[in-house]
Amino acid sequence: MSKKVIINCLPLTDEERQAFSMATAGTDVRQEFVGNPMQRGTMSWQADVPADLREAATAVIGNIPPADCAQYPHLEWLQTWSAGVDRYVAPGVLADGVQVTNATGAYGQTVSEHLFAMMWALMRNLPMYARQQGEHRWHDLGRALTPVGANVLVIGTGDIGSHFATLCKAVGAHTIGVRRDASRPADGIDEMHGFDELDTLLPDADVIALAVPAAPDTTHLIDGRRLTMMKSTAILLNAGRGNAIDPRALARALAEDQLHGAGLDVTEPEPLPASSPLWDEPHCLITPHVAGGNHLAVTEDRIVAIALDNVRRYAHGEPLANRRK
Amino acid sequence: MSKKVIINCLPLTDEERQAFSMATAGTDVRQEFVGNPMQRGTMSWQADVPADLREAATAVIGNIPPADCAQYPHLEWLQTWSAGVDRYVAPGVLADGVQVTNATGAYGQTVSEHLFAMMWALMRNLPMYARQQGEHRWHDLGRALTPVGANVLVIGTGDIGSHFATLCKAVGAHTIGVRRDASRPADGIDEMHGFDELDTLLPDADVIALAVPAAPDTTHLIDGRRLTMMKSTAILLNAGRGNAIDPRALARALAEDQLHGAGLDVTEPEPLPASSPLWDEPHCLITPHVAGGNHLAVTEDRIVAIALDNVRRYAHGEPLANRRK
Repeated sequence: MSKKVIINCLPLTDEERQAFSMATAGTDVRQEFVGNPMQRGTMSWQADVPADLREAATAVIGNIPPADCAQYPHLEWLQTWSAGVDRYVAPGVLADGVQVTNATGAYGQTVSEHLFAMMWALMRNLPMYARQQGEHRWHDLGRALTPVGANVLVIGTGDIGSHFATLCKAVGAHTIGVRRDASRPADGIDEMHGFDELDTLLPDADVIALAVPAAPDTTHLIDGRRLTMMKSTAILLNAGRGNAIDPRALARALAEDQLHGAGLDVTEPEPLPASSPLWDEPHCLITPHVAGGNHLAVTEDRIVAIALDNVRRYAHGEPLANRRK
Repeated sequence: MSKKVIINCLPLTDEERQAFSMATAGTDVRQEFVGNPMQRGTMSWQADVPADLREAATAVIGNIPPADCAQYPHLEWLQTWSAGVDRYVAPGVLADGVQVTNATGAYGQTVSEHLFAMMWALMRNLPMYARQQGEHRWHDLGRALTPVGANVLVIGTGDIGSHFATLCKAVGAHTIGVRRDASRPADGIDEMHGFDELDTLLPDADVIALAVPAAPDTTHLIDGRRLTMMKSTAILLNAGRGNAIDPRALARALAEDQLHGAGLDVTEPEPLPASSPLWDEPHCLITPHVAGGNHLAVTEDRIVAIALDNVRRYAHGEPLANRRK
C-alpha cells in the first residue's frame, strides 16, 4: 500500500499542529505542514504548496488555486477552508475519484451575527444617526422598531438562516422559514414553508432575511413586484448572494419609503459600483461582503476542528465528513 | 365623602378609553379625558388641563408642568408617564400627602434594546462601515467581535440593566452585574457584585454597559484611570446618565485605541456640543438620547396599562403600584 501524504496548509498554532500529528500517529499517513502561522487572524489565508510536495500529495487541506489542481497527480482528497467549493467541483478541475470536503458549519455564526447586527441597527435607525453624527447633529429621528413579536421571514434555512432564526427567536421574534423542501424542519424556525408560498408570506413579514445560495431561480428573487408587497416598516437583509435582490428596484423602493430599510452585505455586482444610488440611500446599510470569511476568531477555530476531524477519519480509513464531491 | 375626579391626559384609543371608563364604573370616581389621541406615536406627549378641571382634580394622569402643581388644590395622586419623577418629588412642588406614581417598567425594553443594538453595531464595525458608505467605499475593515462567551458587565441592574443582561444571555454572553446591594439578585445576571469590586471586574469585561441613575457617586464613574483598565477589544455603552463617563478621558482613550469602541445615547453635556471630539471619533457611535422615550409603540401601550391598573386601584381604594412618593 502506497504511503499517503497530507499537505496541511492551515495557519496552525503549535498546539493545533501537535493535535494534527497525533491524529495520524501510528498510521501510514504522513503530514507536511506548509501553513504560515502568521496568517492566523488575517482576513485571507493562502495555500502555498512547494512543487515537490504536489507530486507526493494524496490529500490537501487548503484552498489551492483551482488551476493548479492538475499538478497533483495522486490527489484523492481536498479539504477546503471555505464553505463554497464551486470552483473545485466544476467539470475538469479534479479527477473523478477525488473527494472534496468543505468547512460548512464554520461560517453560520459569523454570517448570522452580522445579519442580526444589521437588523438591530436598522431597527434603531443607527445608519441615519451615523450620518447625523458626521454633521455633529443631535436630533431625534422618531420611532424605532423591535423584534419582540415581529414576524421574521428567513429565506434559505441552511446553517446561516437557521442560526439567524435562532438568534431572532431568542429575543422574542416569531420565525418563518422558506426552503425548497418545506417538509424538512430547521433549528430556530417556528414554521416552514415552500418557495411557492413566498408571495403570501411577504405582506406579513417585519423582517425578510435572505440567506440563499447562488442558483438561477434565486436571481432577483426580490424584485420590484415583491418589494411592493412588503410592509412600509419592513426590514430587508441580504447576506446570501447579491443577485437575489434587484438593486434598481430596491433603490427605487427605498427612495419611495416602501420599506423601513435594507441591510446589504452582498450586492449585485460586487464591489457595488460607486455610481449606485444605494450608497447614498439613508435607509440602506451597506457592508462590503464581510459577514463571512474569518472575521471572527471562532470561525478559524472551527475550520481547524473540521479539518482535524477529517484528518483522523482519513488516517483511519473512515468516511469523511462535510463531503461535497 | 367628596367625589374624586381623575384628569386623564393620556392620548388614548377609543378602546383604551372605554377600558378606563370601565375601571371606575360603579364607583364615586369621575374621569375627565383631556388627552389628544393625535399625540399617540409622536415622540412627546403634552398634558393640557383646562383651568376649571385643575380645581376639581383629585388625581392627574400625565406629566403636568411642575410649576402648575400649585393650581391643583385637591390633588392627592399624580401618575406620570415618565420613569423620572425628580421634578415632582422636589421639595415644595407637591403637598406632603400627594402620592406620586411613575411608569417604571415601560422603558426597560426600549432602552435595553437600544443598548443591545449599539453593542452589535460596534461588534460588527457598522459605524465605520457607515462612514465608508458615505465615501462609496467597499473595503474590508477586518476582525469583528461576538457576544458568544463574552463577559458583559452591567453597571446598574434595575429594569434597564436587567433587561439588557437578559438579551445578552440569550445570545450566549456571560453576564456580570454591579449594584449597590450585591446580595439582591436580578433577572438575566449570572453573578452580582458590589461597586467596590468594579476595578477588579473591568479588566475581564468584553462589554461594559452603564445603566446607572444620576447620583453624586456615579459622576465620572468611568474616568481615565478606569478606561486604562479595559481590554483593547472592550466595548463601552452608556444609556444611563451622560455624566457617568468623563467625556475628555473617553475621547483620549478612543483616539489611543485603548478600547474597541463606545456607544453613547447620553452624554455630558446634552446635547453634545458640536466641538466635542467624540463626534468625529470613528470608534464612537452617538445617538441623541433616543433609547428611551416612546420610540417603541409598546412603551406607550405599557404606560397606558400601568395607568389603567392604578386607576382601578384608586377607584377601589387599593394601594397604588409604582409609588415613588
